Amino acid sequence: MDIKRDSINKLFNPRSVAVIGASEKPAKLGFHVMLSLTKGDFPGMIIPVNPGSKEIMGLKAFPSIKGLPYEIDLAIIVLPAKMVPAIFEECLSKGVKGIVLISAGFKEIDDPVGVDLHEKLAKVVKRANVPVIGPNTFGMINLQVNLNASFTPEFSLLKKGGIGLVSQSGGMCHLLCFMAIRNDIGFSKIVGIGNRLNVDFAQMVDYLMQDRNTDVIALYMEGIDRPRQLIDTAKTYKGKKPIIAYKTGIGDIGDSASRSHTGSLAGRGEIYSGAFAQAGILGLNSVEALLDTAKALAGSPLPKGPGVAILSSQAGPGIAAADICQMGGLNIVSFTRETQGRINEILPPLALRTNPVDMGPGWYNPEAMVGILRAVMRDENVAGILLFAMFASANIDSIKGLSSLGKDRGQKKPIITCLSAPPGIWDEQIKGFQEAALLVNFPTPERAARVMVNLNRYRNLIIDQ
Amino acid sequence: MDIKRDSINKLFNPRSVAVIGASEKPAKLGFHVMLSLTKGDFPGMIIPVNPGSKEIMGLKAFPSIKGLPYEIDLAIIVLPAKMVPAIFEECLSKGVKGIVLISAGFKEIDDPVGVDLHEKLAKVVKRANVPVIGPNTFGMINLQVNLNASFTPEFSLLKKGGIGLVSQSGGMCHLLCFMAIRNDIGFSKIVGIGNRLNVDFAQMVDYLMQDRNTDVIALYMEGIDRPRQLIDTAKTYKGKKPIIAYKTGIGDIGDSASRSHTGSLAGRGEIYSGAFAQAGILGLNSVEALLDTAKALAGSPLPKGPGVAILSSQAGPGIAAADICQMGGLNIVSFTRETQGRINEILPPLALRTNPVDMGPGWYNPEAMVGILRAVMRDENVAGILLFAMFASANIDSIKGLSSLGKDRGQKKPIITCLSAPPGIWDEQIKGFQEAALLVNFPTPERAARVMVNLNRYRNLIIDQ
Repeated sequence: MDIKRDSINKLFNPRSVAVIGASEKPAKLGFHVMLSLTKGDFPGMIIPVNPGSKEIMGLKAFPSIKGLPYEIDLAIIVLPAKMVPAIFEECLSKGVKGIVLISAGFKEIDDPVGVDLHEKLAKVVKRANVPVIGPNTFGMINLQVNLNASFTPEFSLLKKGGIGLVSQSGGMCHLLCFMAIRNDIGFSKIVGIGNRLNVDFAQMVDYLMQDRNTDVIALYMEGIDRPRQLIDTAKTYKGKKPIIAYKTGIGDIGDSASRSHTGSLAGRGEIYSGAFAQAGILGLNSVEALLDTAKALAGSPLPKGPGVAILSSQAGPGIAAADICQMGGLNIVSFTRETQGRINEILPPLALRTNPVDMGPGWYNPEAMVGILRAVMRDENVAGILLFAMFASANIDSIKGLSSLGKDRGQKKPIITCLSAPPGIWDEQIKGFQEAALLVNFPTPERAARVMVNLNRYRNLIIDQ
Repeated sequence: MDIKRDSINKLFNPRSVAVIGASEKPAKLGFHVMLSLTKGDFPGMIIPVNPGSKEIMGLKAFPSIKGLPYEIDLAIIVLPAKMVPAIFEECLSKGVKGIVLISAGFKEIDDPVGVDLHEKLAKVVKRANVPVIGPNTFGMINLQVNLNASFTPEFSLLKKGGIGLVSQSGGMCHLLCFMAIRNDIGFSKIVGIGNRLNVDFAQMVDYLMQDRNTDVIALYMEGIDRPRQLIDTAKTYKGKKPIIAYKTGIGDIGDSASRSHTGSLAGRGEIYSGAFAQAGILGLNSVEALLDTAKALAGSPLPKGPGVAILSSQAGPGIAAADICQMGGLNIVSFTRETQGRINEILPPLALRTNPVDMGPGWYNPEAMVGILRAVMRDENVAGILLFAMFASANIDSIKGLSSLGKDRGQKKPIITCLSAPPGIWDEQIKGFQEAALLVNFPTPERAARVMVNLNRYRNLIIDQ
């Protein structure tokens, strides 16, 4: 009964999209879906379907999908639940290749009518092997082809990038994407899997593993219907691309609120952590950690070991990071004699020149900062580098030294940073460093250090033990 | 030998400031201090002192402080360490009332010369009871009187507000303030206490407790020279104003890096936590937590108990928050019959209407959202409210309902929120809600929930046990 990978690929890459329940009225979700498709610059054919309209947003509307003079690859359905089974039959007769079912009112409601409807739909699609995203979803987005098949046009503000996001919560997915827009973090595909008629986490992981635009798979989950399937799928691909997951509903109240009716794994966090770890899935515990870690995995090489160097233009951030690294299983290594010799040449004796290095006396001097960074990047004891610097009036230009780092990036060691300045001063410069894959930047030294801990945790999950 | 509160008050409210080591050269810190004072709009007299200049930034410069035809309340010293003892003598002869000693090179360096200089200075100021901020500091800022006595003019971009920040790290203080500028969080006074010649955490806490512009005292600390003094001072004022503290250097590497030579408490986090808790100081574990908690304490009433209501426009954020509340000692209470009845009137049966409430079906309807919020605010079981809503195209206007909340704020219960929207859409609106003290907003539901946990932790510290 499982949906084939190839049919999911078609769902994400349609040539034509029909919106069944399209509307001109802003109070209707069908209006916002039309906005998403049209404003999102989808280059394929967009066909509004609504028996009461001749034209919607400047596009000719049709009364039903039945008599359409075009082939339809994707149907987005935004109609009351009770109408959906008949529409499904029409879609299948028409040869639709994939469905996004935004409508709610199926098995998530406390009413047997919803469960009946859900089962009716499941039977219909089973015959045809047509993949369905939803029901009860905001939709899905394939940024690579400018397809915003959701009721939120703002998803099209996202930058294209390597993160594939699969979310069981529309709210969390919206929040993650708003955070990503503000922080210039790019996505490949975003899917609200909703109540999972036949496309669940396992199918999405399997698909995104093959998707060449996706480098990291990020999952937000509450309850899982078929945890074994997800775990097995993840195991098959262990080490191919990182999978990271944030699972909520681990306390009993959250768990009952998430109404995980049919999960065969209990809601308890520890059970999930164990199963995730075995499957090479990195468990995380907040939307911030999920997004931070996804950003680093998409933008940085993995460290080849737990050895970390902490370089800080001011002592405080280095001390805070040292605490987190130590608690998180990283080694704050001793430098080789060569590296230490080089640092001793650059920094005066009054500075803290061993790891963590307080570059204080060198912080007005971009060459000093970069000289230390270069030496540390080449140090065989160092697998990853944490770099912190706050830039204000007195040292504002020292950030420019980092531009010359490029040629040493061949070392393939992650450089995770907290570079901070007053708003508007170095925002573009830091964005540029990240786009050039020189470094991955975070708003605080603690978040940067936690990311390094998580890169190392992920590495430990996938190496042969 | 302890500095009097009144003399610290004079230090923060000078009528005239001399910058000893003022400079026209951007490579010198004395240039940036002059920028801070002049660009910061300090209304008092600013007197550059430098034997080699006639005029600095349009102000007449004097060769030394000795022959100055004015009284000097505050001297900011930016000269090499070895020159400082003589300058101190001059300052005292001149009757200077306070000193900000930016110069480094005293006891923090691994050189006995530095320790000697430090002790020499300590002796000089002991005679005169003149408070000194530093040495080895960026300076201090009194936002209420537009006094930016630091080498960072960007501190003047901060908004005036109720947080008094005392930091042992210039880097962390700069970072916290850049974060605060970006997030519109206001401060009363900011002090880099540096190497604490005679003004330490205890003196600053004592002073800020009396300062009517300060509502919350936030401390960033690495090592403490006189922990007992801080603990005793905090105990004296227990419950008067919140004191929150982030202490780093708790692992052995961070601890040794923080070079806390003379602390009588060890670096270990647990020992500090215990002592802090007894003194009513709330311990926190990141700059983010320090700033989030300070913001909430400055902008919100304290909850009167551990009972919390979680209201979410989309289920996911509510589930994530429920996990954190449960683990953090809050009670996700049952509503009274009256409240539950009101919610049942507003939300259809298919919604999750008990705590945590999924307001999903009401999220397009501002009246529904506010109706539920009002009922919950009046519920005697509820001491604090967590409210989450993500706003995009389909529900973008429902945020407006919150404007009508004002008249119920008499209930004096904290409303901690994560309201999020794409950039530029509701930023000003949310800022307005916070300025009107309707709510305190955070970027994620987890951070909002942790803040509520911390408000309750603080309440538990100060109530009689």
